[in-house]
Amino acid sequence: MFPICFILFFLFLSTSNAAVQDFCVGDPMGPESPAGYSCKPVTKVTIDDFVFSGLGIPGNTTNIINAAVTPAFAAQFPGVNGLGISAARLDLAPGGVIPMHTHPGASELLIVARGRITSGFISSANNVYYKTLKKGDSIVLPQGLLHFQVNAAKIHSVAFVSFSSPVPGLQILDFALFANNLPSLLVEKTTFLDDAQVKKLKAVLGGTG
Amino acid sequence: MFPICFILFFLFLSTSNAAVQDFCVGDPMGPESPAGYSCKPVTKVTIDDFVFSGLGIPGNTTNIINAAVTPAFAAQFPGVNGLGISAARLDLAPGGVIPMHTHPGASELLIVARGRITSGFISSANNVYYKTLKKGDSIVLPQGLLHFQVNAAKIHSVAFVSFSSPVPGLQILDFALFANNLPSLLVEKTTFLDDAQVKKLKAVLGGTG
Amino acid sequence: MFPICFILFFLFLSTSNAAVQDFCVGDPMGPESPAGYSCKPVTKVTIDDFVFSGLGIPGNTTNIINAAVTPAFAAQFPGVNGLGISAARLDLAPGGVIPMHTHPGASELLIVARGRITSGFISSANNVYYKTLKKGDSIVLPQGLLHFQVNAAKIHSVAFVSFSSPVPGLQILDFALFANNLPSLLVEKTTFLDDAQVKKLKAVLGGTG
Amino acid sequence: MFPICFILFFLFLSTSNAAVQDFCVGDPMGPESPAGYSCKPVTKVTIDDFVFSGLGIPGNTTNIINAAVTPAFAAQFPGVNGLGISAARLDLAPGGVIPMHTHPGASELLIVARGRITSGFISSANNVYYKTLKKGDSIVLPQGLLHFQVNAAKIHSVAFVSFSSPVPGLQILDFALFANNLPSLLVEKTTFLDDAQVKKLKAVLGGTG
Amino acid sequence: MFPICFILFFLFLSTSNAAVQDFCVGDPMGPESPAGYSCKPVTKVTIDDFVFSGLGIPGNTTNIINAAVTPAFAAQFPGVNGLGISAARLDLAPGGVIPMHTHPGASELLIVARGRITSGFISSANNVYYKTLKKGDSIVLPQGLLHFQVNAAKIHSVAFVSFSSPVPGLQILDFALFANNLPSLLVEKTTFLDDAQVKKLKAVLGGTG
Amino acid sequence: MFPICFILFFLFLSTSNAAVQDFCVGDPMGPESPAGYSCKPVTKVTIDDFVFSGLGIPGNTTNIINAAVTPAFAAQFPGVNGLGISAARLDLAPGGVIPMHTHPGASELLIVARGRITSGFISSANNVYYKTLKKGDSIVLPQGLLHFQVNAAKIHSVAFVSFSSPVPGLQILDFALFANNLPSLLVEKTTFLDDAQVKKLKAVLGGTG
Repeated sequence: MFPICFILFFLFLSTSNAAVQDFCVGDPMGPESPAGYSCKPVTKVTIDDFVFSGLGIPGNTTNIINAAVTPAFAAQFPGVNGLGISAARLDLAPGGVIPMHTHPGASELLIVARGRITSGFISSANNVYYKTLKKGDSIVLPQGLLHFQVNAAKIHSVAFVSFSSPVPGLQILDFALFANNLPSLLVEKTTFLDDAQVKKLKAVLGGTG
Repeated sequence: MFPICFILFFLFLSTSNAAVQDFCVGDPMGPESPAGYSCKPVTKVTIDDFVFSGLGIPGNTTNIINAAVTPAFAAQFPGVNGLGISAARLDLAPGGVIPMHTHPGASELLIVARGRITSGFISSANNVYYKTLKKGDSIVLPQGLLHFQVNAAKIHSVAFVSFSSPVPGLQILDFALFANNLPSLLVEKTTFLDDAQVKKLKAVLGGTG
Repeated sequence: MFPICFILFFLFLSTSNAAVQDFCVGDPMGPESPAGYSCKPVTKVTIDDFVFSGLGIPGNTTNIINAAVTPAFAAQFPGVNGLGISAARLDLAPGGVIPMHTHPGASELLIVARGRITSGFISSANNVYYKTLKKGDSIVLPQGLLHFQVNAAKIHSVAFVSFSSPVPGLQILDFALFANNLPSLLVEKTTFLDDAQVKKLKAVLGGTG
Repeated sequence: MFPICFILFFLFLSTSNAAVQDFCVGDPMGPESPAGYSCKPVTKVTIDDFVFSGLGIPGNTTNIINAAVTPAFAAQFPGVNGLGISAARLDLAPGGVIPMHTHPGASELLIVARGRITSGFISSANNVYYKTLKKGDSIVLPQGLLHFQVNAAKIHSVAFVSFSSPVPGLQILDFALFANNLPSLLVEKTTFLDDAQVKKLKAVLGGTG
Repeated sequence: MFPICFILFFLFLSTSNAAVQDFCVGDPMGPESPAGYSCKPVTKVTIDDFVFSGLGIPGNTTNIINAAVTPAFAAQFPGVNGLGISAARLDLAPGGVIPMHTHPGASELLIVARGRITSGFISSANNVYYKTLKKGDSIVLPQGLLHFQVNAAKIHSVAFVSFSSPVPGLQILDFALFANNLPSLLVEKTTFLDDAQVKKLKAVLGGTG
Repeated sequence: MFPICFILFFLFLSTSNAAVQDFCVGDPMGPESPAGYSCKPVTKVTIDDFVFSGLGIPGNTTNIINAAVTPAFAAQFPGVNGLGISAARLDLAPGGVIPMHTHPGASELLIVARGRITSGFISSANNVYYKTLKKGDSIVLPQGLLHFQVNAAKIHSVAFVSFSSPVPGLQILDFALFANNLPSLLVEKTTFLDDAQVKKLKAVLGGTG
């Protein structure tokens, strides 16, 4: 009796199975739209598209900020494309700092996985909200606002962060001001920083103009 | 005088007419994005892209559940692509049941067109909401929650349902658990169902493992 | 053994049950926000909030248009509040017409339940799309565009329509132009209709000015 | 010391720079999705994609309505694609009128830059809201509702308008009714306009049927 | 000179400072809308509204599933209200299982912080995607689909999960079917489970009917 | 005959008129939600809620930046609440500068109404896009990115800007860093600015710590 049931049962769904778009694994070869990457054909999707191992690997903190950001955005983790979420790992060696930055396209939720981290943000009303978080503490950083993370421990600290978008963007203040060809004069006029200060940081960060 | 007016009148709009995207009829050949199918060129769009006749045809209920779902999602009805809405027809022969299922991407609104149907859903707070509906009654089933439809009449019952998305998705509980290669052991561990029960339904529904 | 398990099992979820907002049944007494009505407390929600019987009752078509619209928007059907969907019933007596109108906030999907209905819309590019639909046929009408329904049968025709928003809005062209205090002069200037025509329809529809 | 720092500093960001999608300049050659045009490759994007000069040029008002609309929608101004905003310029010569119309996909915010303009809209509840605005005054016109602009000055008036979508659409009432092949009979049935009136305007605007 | 500058500088912004709504910390006393909780007045908001310590505390796994879920949804963590993100902690003792469940309102991104976890989901197309993840691995689970987590280590495993909504919801399959007053007959009809199986689990989980 | 028709005609719409929410004029006295202000009752709404005159008044540029921003956000212009759009006026005296800032919640579209303005933004990929715009030119500035406006004329320049949200927010870089109680040490650590520079600007802008 079962084989017959089985056949009949599937008849009931034969059409509707065609109408699925539960997910849209990003295909970096296809065209991008404002909604994200094109979808990889479902027939080629495997579990590995939904799994990302990069956040398990400590970032290289041998640099001027003693810190590293390892992103798992749609560009690195195609499974999150279109799903409204992404992640990153922050590594902060002793003395490490993730400098003042914004994510233009997403709010951020940070969980301290190791050590202690001072994190905070500044609101449009110019209020400052910050705190030193211990292992297991979380902080939420509203979309688009300047925020920062500073290692408050004497050991290497680690945080996992997630974002409310697969493409949160990342604008680091010092890079935006000093690591490109934005003319010093414009930087100074629009930030009130002194010429010497601007030129010093441009030199460190490779900016021209 | 009219011919001149006519020409002048159109001049006024000659540019703006290029800027239209009132709709985006789905083109199954183009790439998909998280927002849906690519748009068919407007010059190839006809009224038939916006009309669907499938919901007028009774589904075949000669199956184990004595019921049928006829979808009019973006895959079957390209006119709804990008418009935030889709539909389906439910046919329930006497004794028919649309088994426990969810639509991961949409809320549902059901109208009984013939007969009587018992329908309901279970909330995250684990409350049960269900009622037997007569012809002309409607029920709204919030997005993503388990719900069901059972024929409560001795005749063939029919309902028209609509969804708050052109790609609502459809996950039938028994299919998800018993009609694929999810190992019996995992099913049992994550559902607390007995091994015999799982194996019995896997046999009926064609599941392996 | 069961009672103990039972207690322990629930402990596991004691906190998370507080965090539910699967739905937001509209409370007409609370403040409205751009997202809709305030939510009725979950403890007061019953199945009857999710069920609406009004679409089963034929609208009164003894009027100048031989037709009636019975809405099941958030104002009439509080269960749809916040769920991205709503519905209505159209009754068209022989000769009946739902006059040219728009829904400023939603796309519409119509299913003919009885009779034959001619329905269509006009796009921003000024193309006309219309067809005579028989029982069981569907048409989708993109958001915000002028559209209409005309009874194409000699019998009373009925359609069920659904919308991609719980508050689709409804702007009937003739009412907007002729049934309020918009001065005739302004109507004429902005529509190119003749003064006599405007005044005639203002008289029929009760407009002043 | 600086060169080394500089290299190390960039290592910290080498990966994350790949994950940007701050904008999606429209590529008219690529496929369209319901979310808009495909994105032009970032490497080909220049400042000129984000700048539009068309709104500085007075529209040609030598036409039947003594007015002109110059759109800066995604089709004309590819930089706004996906950014939730667009604009247009309105020129109204003395006696000029932007006839009754809707934007099916966006709310509008108008600022009078020169002269005086009478503008208003009609709501779904059939209320009329209009006022004569002087230079510097703004009015907001909610999405999808019929609205109009009339020159209230004896000089050429100008307004800049912006929209809450890069593809607001534009449906001009008279064009929708009288400038295409929608049969006169259908127009009359669905608008209650007299046959003579419909035929007169069809003749002016080039409509057939 | 500075005091004067200072005063003048602030004049420039005196008005615009009033127009901020960067965040909306949830006020559980105010009315809820479909968009979330009412906003706590900004003057009463402190850094503690944006910080949550609950995810640092291991959940109590002394229960039938040897596991615990500690949510940081808007109800527990008011700072996430309106920000499109929330989080939770999963504790799995040896043998622990987070049973088959869905989040009707959000996609989930899981990071293994300790141990090894087998996690996966089933799609609408009935495909199974699962893998055993080691510490540091991530998996993304698309919105609304059935998924599960099983401890694959001999030690206590821990994961941090985040969601693409502050109110993701949580529907645990066994609770929905067996821990409320949904009549056994309806459960059996809509799931094809045997009567004995249903009654056994209803007894364990406290269901009635 | 007309009076009767008139009555009958209205009967047809008696119910549906209750279901409107075309707009939601902000009521600053009611609770705020993540979607915006509560709605003023429709019966109290007048045309003046949709009209704003503030953008016609030149801002006071007698300050350190020789510039002024006059916002027409939901807080100043309640008619835009919930409508996805807002506006502002920029006044730049000779030498005037709107300093480097972001709008965390909206993209911006600027139109030069008088004079010449140099405006631009920096992307997440650290590219600089800027240009000197003449009267009538527009520029679009994507959401959340640092941007600026500098008077490039010898006369008073004016621009009208619009935003893709009624609550775009406004974070001025110098205010965020130097005009509040964020400790100098934290500013220096997270921006690499020199202590002297930070203290100098804190003194000018009234910051403490």
